[in-house]
Amino acid sequence: MRFEHETLAQRVCFAPGEAAVAVRAEAKRLGGSRVMVIAATAEADLAEKVTAELPVVLRHEEVVMHVPVASAERARTAAAAHDVDLLVSIGGGSTTGLAKAVALTSGLPIVAVPTTYAGSEATSVWGLTEEARKTTGVDARVLPRAIVYDATLTLSLPVPMSVASGLNALAHCVDSLWAPRTDPVDQTLAGEGIRALATGLPAVASAPAGLEGREQVLYGAYLSALAFSSAGSGLHHKICHVLGGAYDLPHAQTHAVVLPYVLAFNAPAAPDAERRIAHSLGAPSALEGLQRLRHAVDAPKALRDHGFQEADIDDAVQAILEVVPASNPRPVTPNALRQLLRAAWQGADPLTLSGEES
Amino acid sequence: MRFEHETLAQRVCFAPGEAAVAVRAEAKRLGGSRVMVIAATAEADLAEKVTAELPVVLRHEEVVMHVPVASAERARTAAAAHDVDLLVSIGGGSTTGLAKAVALTSGLPIVAVPTTYAGSEATSVWGLTEEARKTTGVDARVLPRAIVYDATLTLSLPVPMSVASGLNALAHCVDSLWAPRTDPVDQTLAGEGIRALATGLPAVASAPAGLEGREQVLYGAYLSALAFSSAGSGLHHKICHVLGGAYDLPHAQTHAVVLPYVLAFNAPAAPDAERRIAHSLGAPSALEGLQRLRHAVDAPKALRDHGFQEADIDDAVQAILEVVPASNPRPVTPNALRQLLRAAWQGADPLTLSGEES
Repeated sequence: MRFEHETLAQRVCFAPGEAAVAVRAEAKRLGGSRVMVIAATAEADLAEKVTAELPVVLRHEEVVMHVPVASAERARTAAAAHDVDLLVSIGGGSTTGLAKAVALTSGLPIVAVPTTYAGSEATSVWGLTEEARKTTGVDARVLPRAIVYDATLTLSLPVPMSVASGLNALAHCVDSLWAPRTDPVDQTLAGEGIRALATGLPAVASAPAGLEGREQVLYGAYLSALAFSSAGSGLHHKICHVLGGAYDLPHAQTHAVVLPYVLAFNAPAAPDAERRIAHSLGAPSALEGLQRLRHAVDAPKALRDHGFQEADIDDAVQAILEVVPASNPRPVTPNALRQLLRAAWQGADPLTLSGEES
Repeated sequence: MRFEHETLAQRVCFAPGEAAVAVRAEAKRLGGSRVMVIAATAEADLAEKVTAELPVVLRHEEVVMHVPVASAERARTAAAAHDVDLLVSIGGGSTTGLAKAVALTSGLPIVAVPTTYAGSEATSVWGLTEEARKTTGVDARVLPRAIVYDATLTLSLPVPMSVASGLNALAHCVDSLWAPRTDPVDQTLAGEGIRALATGLPAVASAPAGLEGREQVLYGAYLSALAFSSAGSGLHHKICHVLGGAYDLPHAQTHAVVLPYVLAFNAPAAPDAERRIAHSLGAPSALEGLQRLRHAVDAPKALRDHGFQEADIDDAVQAILEVVPASNPRPVTPNALRQLLRAAWQGADPLTLSGEES
């Protein structure tokens, strides 16, 4: 048992229906007297309600996907001009990301109020884009000091987006079980995250207006972020990163399709992870549990339905081979990877990947 | 799902056989150039080996149980006189506690190297005693910045002490499942802690020179401290605190005897906790699993073997009733508590407590 694990300082409040009260308490705790609220225009009304009782000096609504540097610069300038002492972000990953960009250069504390299952609020990872190039980094200053999870704020998230975002969190959990820096603490949190997501996602899909499912998915997304940011990217995320970057495939759908194939491929060589996933899913095997869950939420099935071309498989194999983690439990040969991508492309039964190579 | 959970900033290294390397790395990371090593005389040789390559300016060997204020003051004065910039503590709970006492007033960072399963290294709780009165508090400054767990350093801990210390950690896990501030994250960590302790303790008892069992117990003790310091004291710890304080019963033995009685009493009213404990112990029921484990490690069985008098039961009941957590899953009536203490006093079958009161 040889590992290093780092825990980060953060207060996390699960407060269904009480975001305004919880945010006020956290803002007070952090001594915020000049608050900058960051929330996209689409969520301005929601943000207004959540922050009505705060000493707000600035409401910033320019939120752009992937946090372009120019957009971050405008937010930083605005924060400085208004002598802001606390950032409150209300929204999805891009909103949290913009608050992090401001914190990165200013050191301002953040209270994050997530409205999706992105998980960025629980990590010290920041990301900025400039001319379509993404730069990411890790800095303690960007970790929100407090998170307020209020499941009622996610009720307006449409089911397909909820499912895609939740399956992305599930992929974080599964991949963190065999990622390069995985450790027993990550694995414990990931197992609980899988359980929560598998409980919550079908409930969200079948009863979108209900709160219980959304609470479980928010909780699972929080745990997935803890586990994944500690363990790092495993095979699944390396594959999806290449597919998303080189072939412009949609992020969430790519994750949702690829996950069962990576699981089927790795499971025979990762019996502990397989057992943990199966147990968390309440299924006889990890793959069976995952497929049941995917069926229950009507998850996307094949990459060819989302823009990936059969003719690109060979090039993708080469690009992925360069970034495959050396620590992957099963050796990733060009042939195995080609089979995996072909199966994911056509939506074949993942079980065909779990046997030894012929 | 309504709770608050706070995570603390700490680096944790599990480095069996490599404490010296890991401590050097952590000291360097913290910029330690004038190190005060705190280790009891009995562990001076061990401490010398672990810290041989550090820039040590002071070796402090006066370590007294329960950290008397006068002793803490001498350590603080010595640290100031030597212009220390980093504390490295090597030892059990009292050693870590002394380092915390120095950090409390000086703000000096601590690298903790535990040699028992006390768990203090993973919390921001400090304790001092003056004229037999114990004061405790919580302060972010006393949380060690880094922990180095090296199971080889625990090999010299005799089996009875290992078992008692490990069962104490187990009690932290179990009690944290229904303690006043318990939350799903605490419960997840506690469940994994129970699993690790139940795996490790029998291995330590049957093969004390082996490393695997001790690694598991150290890991379980770490998790137990995380869960317990977040969740707070439940019924079990309130009972043991009263018994230890008023009747001078030995700490570890008291915990070891009382735990199955509290579990038997609470289990019928705490089905989720019961299932989690049973699963972590790999047993059909929580109580059966705990009793199997206690049998495997030859745990103490009755309070009357450790100095508790039958005549004191009624007074103890009164004292405990005043501190019973309101959140306990099952109401604690005077009659129920009397039955519990009587059963624990004579070492009766705990199952007699699990039924409804007549």
